[in-house]
Amino acid sequence: MRVEPRTLPGFMELLPNEQIQFNSMVDKIRKSYERFGFLPIDTPIIEMADVLLAKAGGETEKQIYRFNKGENDLALRFDLTVPLAKYVCEYKNDITFPFKRYQIGKVYRGERPQKGRYREFYQCDIDIIGDGELSIINDAEMPSVIYTTIKELGFDDFTIRINNRKILNGLFEELQLQKESVEIMRIIDKLEKIGKDNVIECLKDLKIEDSKINKIITFLEIDGTTDEKIVALQNLNFSNELFKQGLDELTKVVEYVRLFGVPDTNFKVDLTIARGLDYYTGTVYETFLNDYREVGSVCSGGRYDNLAEFYTDKKLPGVGVSIGLTRLFYKLNELNIVKEKEKSISRVLVVSMNENPSIALEVGTKIRQAGVNADVYLEDKKIKSKFKYADKLKIPYVAIIGEEEEKNGTVSLKNMQTGEQEEVSLEKAIEMLKSIS
Amino acid sequence: MRVEPRTLPGFMELLPNEQIQFNSMVDKIRKSYERFGFLPIDTPIIEMADVLLAKAGGETEKQIYRFNKGENDLALRFDLTVPLAKYVCEYKNDITFPFKRYQIGKVYRGERPQKGRYREFYQCDIDIIGDGELSIINDAEMPSVIYTTIKELGFDDFTIRINNRKILNGLFEELQLQKESVEIMRIIDKLEKIGKDNVIECLKDLKIEDSKINKIITFLEIDGTTDEKIVALQNLNFSNELFKQGLDELTKVVEYVRLFGVPDTNFKVDLTIARGLDYYTGTVYETFLNDYREVGSVCSGGRYDNLAEFYTDKKLPGVGVSIGLTRLFYKLNELNIVKEKEKSISRVLVVSMNENPSIALEVGTKIRQAGVNADVYLEDKKIKSKFKYADKLKIPYVAIIGEEEEKNGTVSLKNMQTGEQEEVSLEKAIEMLKSIS
Repeated sequence: MRVEPRTLPGFMELLPNEQIQFNSMVDKIRKSYERFGFLPIDTPIIEMADVLLAKAGGETEKQIYRFNKGENDLALRFDLTVPLAKYVCEYKNDITFPFKRYQIGKVYRGERPQKGRYREFYQCDIDIIGDGELSIINDAEMPSVIYTTIKELGFDDFTIRINNRKILNGLFEELQLQKESVEIMRIIDKLEKIGKDNVIECLKDLKIEDSKINKIITFLEIDGTTDEKIVALQNLNFSNELFKQGLDELTKVVEYVRLFGVPDTNFKVDLTIARGLDYYTGTVYETFLNDYREVGSVCSGGRYDNLAEFYTDKKLPGVGVSIGLTRLFYKLNELNIVKEKEKSISRVLVVSMNENPSIALEVGTKIRQAGVNADVYLEDKKIKSKFKYADKLKIPYVAIIGEEEEKNGTVSLKNMQTGEQEEVSLEKAIEMLKSIS
Repeated sequence: MRVEPRTLPGFMELLPNEQIQFNSMVDKIRKSYERFGFLPIDTPIIEMADVLLAKAGGETEKQIYRFNKGENDLALRFDLTVPLAKYVCEYKNDITFPFKRYQIGKVYRGERPQKGRYREFYQCDIDIIGDGELSIINDAEMPSVIYTTIKELGFDDFTIRINNRKILNGLFEELQLQKESVEIMRIIDKLEKIGKDNVIECLKDLKIEDSKINKIITFLEIDGTTDEKIVALQNLNFSNELFKQGLDELTKVVEYVRLFGVPDTNFKVDLTIARGLDYYTGTVYETFLNDYREVGSVCSGGRYDNLAEFYTDKKLPGVGVSIGLTRLFYKLNELNIVKEKEKSISRVLVVSMNENPSIALEVGTKIRQAGVNADVYLEDKKIKSKFKYADKLKIPYVAIIGEEEEKNGTVSLKNMQTGEQEEVSLEKAIEMLKSIS
């Protein structure tokens, strides 16, 4: 009885050519994270459900893959932050603080499947966890890593938007609007979409006094360069401690971000971003590709006071950002702007013009020993099939070995794009292939 | 309410230093697979249970992680071969045959947890799948990939053992012992352990005639070099077609393996290996580290007639090998012979001797821009703590910036192993760091 081979909806599965592009992006992200000294960890995809769900609730709990195996109540991880919290608590005596770690791996959320939404997707996370305390300078390292990473991925025109939650929360405290803060944030978030007048109307609906609405609008209308915004915030002369602390932190982060070498063209202060309301406590980040705003934020995160309060008394402040790579790849693909042009694994396909593959095998081995990826066509097929194989796999060169080449101890190297073909010594061929590797 | 953070038994979780070693092994395996032109694929960890279990049964079915989500009967993959079969059938019109693919990923088996046995573990697979047919030369490429990979992992003294299942099956046909073949194989497998006399006794217990037992023993006692063994097999003068076909294939594989550049010191014909009895149909491989036989086979596999008969009518012969990396890493670690000495991500830690981190941040950025992994110590701690951090993370160099260095526009580069320290220009420091990268 035959079973129909099929893949679950919401699970990305790529053809090899696309997988090469995807992997190239993973490699670049990893390389960039390691450039800053982040250490790799790899945690299980399956955990005890009570461990994973210690803090979760609401949507998360509904979306989780949870099941029993024997007597164990298990679940698949839905992010890389909870496993990090678990890891840090479990190995707190063996790891070195500040603990800079990266993790790139699959996470699972049983969302309603829709275009561009995945149930299995890669997250690429970095976090720095302090033991009790963590300097504000770490908040400035994040934009530096984001900058390096997004550049590495081939994009130049992007903006890292930085804010500090204490400024927003301080504003609400100052205006005695803490209770309404969640609703106000929701309205503010729509500013770009619905415009200032509608925002004012919505705030009036919440029965907020006009003087307070004016202050919120004044705050939202703060504009200009990064430095001008900071001056404008100072000029608000709010006495609220939280606000002052947030402004002080933001000022320092901006100063240090520049020392980290991030140009002002690639970051700015954006007083409207908040990144959800319960987790982050200080600096927050979002990153947009300016030519492709529809992609949404490609790298987001922020500062939190306490990584693992549901596991331990130990205070573990941290700061981190994450790239949701599966969705990003989907979007870049959809927009046809995947920057990875490298589409083949092999640099060369070695083909024999006659039935005896001996010379081809030896040539292939020598090319590989020189550090060049080489495939040897092993099937006894017509020469046309062999070239078609190279063509479909987008292998840039074919090294042909026929009677003539066998006699002369040479190979004919054919450039598959230009069609040019040159008979050269194997050493010369290897040299040419290395120069294009 | 606090939850105890804990990891499930049977799930490997490494400290960062070990994870670096593990990842380095993954990188080397991947690099070696790509060297031969194998293409990457990445399939979901979750599949429809009926798809995953189309062929399975017995032990596999018992060990599988299976659960419902909504109305779906789901399961976690227990190997990378079934997902490959699914993938090849699903995308048969889009992929290019012969389809050379590698996949490195986690698989799940709910085995009884015991030392060195994992429920979540990495497999590193390569396979070549033909469309209807696949030349025997592909069977010779596998040892070449194994050879390159195990060398890349740092081992020199290893033996790839090669056999052909048709020889064994032909022998049993020739002796009309097909029915007893499973039991005989089980006894033969114990030869090294129990010795020849006990094997003979066991075979007698199966009521096999003495003349046949003699032939089996003669077969098992075939010894000598690879070529001598092949001559001895020819000299048996068996008329059985399957045997002759197997011998012919084995002879060709040996010939081609040499052409692929694998030295005779690293492979041999071993007529006793069979790799289970139901899946493989031709060439089979096992690979042993000669100094560490207790590790077991580090890379095994073989030829099969039909990858996906449970999904399709299409004949898809293939050949492949697999490295069980999680178990291998565990064993190498236990024996203290992990060959990856590289234990740090950063090449250098930049530390400031005073409170102002400005210069340190700029120095860190410049070192990174030169392509060297660099961590900057950002916490305002005593200098001793900063060196302790470098020490614990095994970072080989510390770049110190004090008053003197700030004035001179230099850094003092300290070799953490020798304790030597040298004040040099930043350019010179980068040059030194690059030379050790």
